Amino acid sequence: MDLIYRGKTKDVYKDNNGEIVLYFKDDMTGKDGVFDPGENQVGLKVEGSGIAGLQMTSFFFEKLNAAGIPTHYVSADVENREMRVKKISVFGEGLEVICRFKAVGSFIRRYGDYIEEGAELPAYVEVTLKDDERQDPFINEAALEALNILSADEYKEIADLTVKISEVVKDELAEKGLDLYDIKLEFGRDEETGEVLLIDEISGGNMRVYKDGEYIEPLKLNGYMFDK
Amino acid sequence: MDLIYRGKTKDVYKDNNGEIVLYFKDDMTGKDGVFDPGENQVGLKVEGSGIAGLQMTSFFFEKLNAAGIPTHYVSADVENREMRVKKISVFGEGLEVICRFKAVGSFIRRYGDYIEEGAELPAYVEVTLKDDERQDPFINEAALEALNILSADEYKEIADLTVKISEVVKDELAEKGLDLYDIKLEFGRDEETGEVLLIDEISGGNMRVYKDGEYIEPLKLNGYMFDK
Repeated sequence: MDLIYRGKTKDVYKDNNGEIVLYFKDDMTGKDGVFDPGENQVGLKVEGSGIAGLQMTSFFFEKLNAAGIPTHYVSADVENREMRVKKISVFGEGLEVICRFKAVGSFIRRYGDYIEEGAELPAYVEVTLKDDERQDPFINEAALEALNILSADEYKEIADLTVKISEVVKDELAEKGLDLYDIKLEFGRDEETGEVLLIDEISGGNMRVYKDGEYIEPLKLNGYMFDK
Repeated sequence: MDLIYRGKTKDVYKDNNGEIVLYFKDDMTGKDGVFDPGENQVGLKVEGSGIAGLQMTSFFFEKLNAAGIPTHYVSADVENREMRVKKISVFGEGLEVICRFKAVGSFIRRYGDYIEEGAELPAYVEVTLKDDERQDPFINEAALEALNILSADEYKEIADLTVKISEVVKDELAEKGLDLYDIKLEFGRDEETGEVLLIDEISGGNMRVYKDGEYIEPLKLNGYMFDK
């Protein structure tokens, strides 16, 4: 397989048939050895995190595909940390779409004058640009249009999909007594059909989950979700 | 008259009839003696800046009132730096609504990966919260709704008014060969009728204006606008 892109937590390969394979590494985003889903750098290496991330991702993408929500997911080989996906192109240089059910993190740092930490939010959606140099700047719908990154229709489609997907994840977690505070999704366009697809991964690495008011580390999440 | 609020560049009084009077001070926002409309602190005192600000403000508010655009402006006594206004309440703790025709300043700091400095923007509108402690955080429509600061209808009304008002200012400046790059407006609700009104001021202090590609200092603007 040919390496075509080396990412922070995943590498992208093209196999001999020209199909795209994501390889889940044991690297996690964070700072000074502490995991932080909002960080832009690899902060720590944790053995087993690649397998855990793919186990969770394949679980959710299969649920979403079954529910008729379009994703890039084709199949997964969890043992070998490989996920086969459709070919996509990203919007601009890539977007991160965040859905928040509880006011924590940067939402509180920005709007703490108006809301208590941990207060409920109605599946609030916001978008940031993937731009390490500029610390993933927050962007609104009008700027996404002005910069030709998304049309008004695409914005609405992505925002609606984000709420739908995040509710699916929230409901699955709730069945295990877990509480989803926020989640970060990525979207792309199917290179063949042009359809908007959920891409990347859904794992502990891109959500904040609590149980009885206590934060659950990403790697502990798999235990709650898949163990008896 | 009773002082009811001491602002950075204006003080607010209530006169003996209970009417509201704004007093334009000679203080300007900026840092280390350099004017900056985006700054949250008073950075310099310039004799004549109060009169210049009110001269410009009354000029534009009279134009806007005549054009049927709702503002808080009642009358002005430029010599005495007093502007009589309607009683209003602000949205939340106050919003700043920015309209950009050219990509400069914080827009470039955020989105410089997607657009050249100085490139045209189609009357792009963005909102920030007035919150000195949190450096006036940028906020999107969904968060304004989630935090009960604006309804979806109010957001649309304010965004539409912002484009209309900014175009009026841009056209007036263009008649003097001046080029409006961006402008910061504020809105409130008429305490009697509930109507959304343009409030605060429109002066050199809240816009970036260029002539033949060169930045024009706020106080020099009055010379271009009103001198023969």
